[in-house]
Amino acid sequence: MRILGVDPGYGIVGIGIIEVSGNRISHVFHGTIETPKDLPAEKRLKRIYEEFLKVLERFSPDECAMEKLFFVKNVTTAIGVGEARGVLLLALAEKNIPVFEYAPNEVKVSLSGYGRASKKQIQENIKRFLNLSEIPRPDDAADALAIAWCHALQSRARRVTHGEN
Amino acid sequence: MRILGVDPGYGIVGIGIIEVSGNRISHVFHGTIETPKDLPAEKRLKRIYEEFLKVLERFSPDECAMEKLFFVKNVTTAIGVGEARGVLLLALAEKNIPVFEYAPNEVKVSLSGYGRASKKQIQENIKRFLNLSEIPRPDDAADALAIAWCHALQSRARRVTHGEN
Repeated sequence: MRILGVDPGYGIVGIGIIEVSGNRISHVFHGTIETPKDLPAEKRLKRIYEEFLKVLERFSPDECAMEKLFFVKNVTTAIGVGEARGVLLLALAEKNIPVFEYAPNEVKVSLSGYGRASKKQIQENIKRFLNLSEIPRPDDAADALAIAWCHALQSRARRVTHGEN
Repeated sequence: MRILGVDPGYGIVGIGIIEVSGNRISHVFHGTIETPKDLPAEKRLKRIYEEFLKVLERFSPDECAMEKLFFVKNVTTAIGVGEARGVLLLALAEKNIPVFEYAPNEVKVSLSGYGRASKKQIQENIKRFLNLSEIPRPDDAADALAIAWCHALQSRARRVTHGEN
């Protein structure tokens, strides 16, 4: 099963893709979609939407995992992240890819065993667990891989719980 | 010039369309796009996007006006409204329709002369200014007409200022 992790944002969308087969989880791709600040909001959203559709077509993920947003600096930031999420979710709906959401805390637990690990620790673990030669850059792409990893563990746990393994 | 006013939301998107020709502003259409709560978020966004594209194709507005969101109950609400705004802005970008944003206060001033008018007063004025037989229903559609009205006055003011009239 191929899992796409997404870290939504207006300026940068983090993308991380992993493959789960049996007990093995391997790295497929990581990268970002970036939009210039000087474009009008609606043109940036169009760019995000079109580039994200290309990612979905290129990698054909089976499921998508996104981080739930709980705390933001202000309402304007929340609206902006929401707008970016909106066009990402639309593209996923058009491709019939189910979306799963995880709290930041759940992502940390799945990568370190506890909810208070530092960003650096999480990134070191992502590098180690996925056998990468270095920490994925930029942070948004590393975060996206972490979210995908979290979903891989959670869905495996669900399968075990339901006796499907 | 045809102006589309939009009151963005997840459950209900208010739509209001007016026509400006010379000094005359007339009512064209008002209504809503509604999505059921029991649909997954991404399917609701897809529905909003598709229905909104139909509105754009049916009425061919020249410009769109939306309310800026300043205060919301919580981050989850802001994210939700942001997601709906995201797919609306995407549809507008795809149709090359410019978007203008107004603060709630600006909308009130344009319809009552001051920023503290009640919702009821604003709605009564919308009914009177557009020669409607009754107050537009639901509130979201009335709000959308109010936002369109605000943009009509503001863009006329800009034209006068720039000596184009």
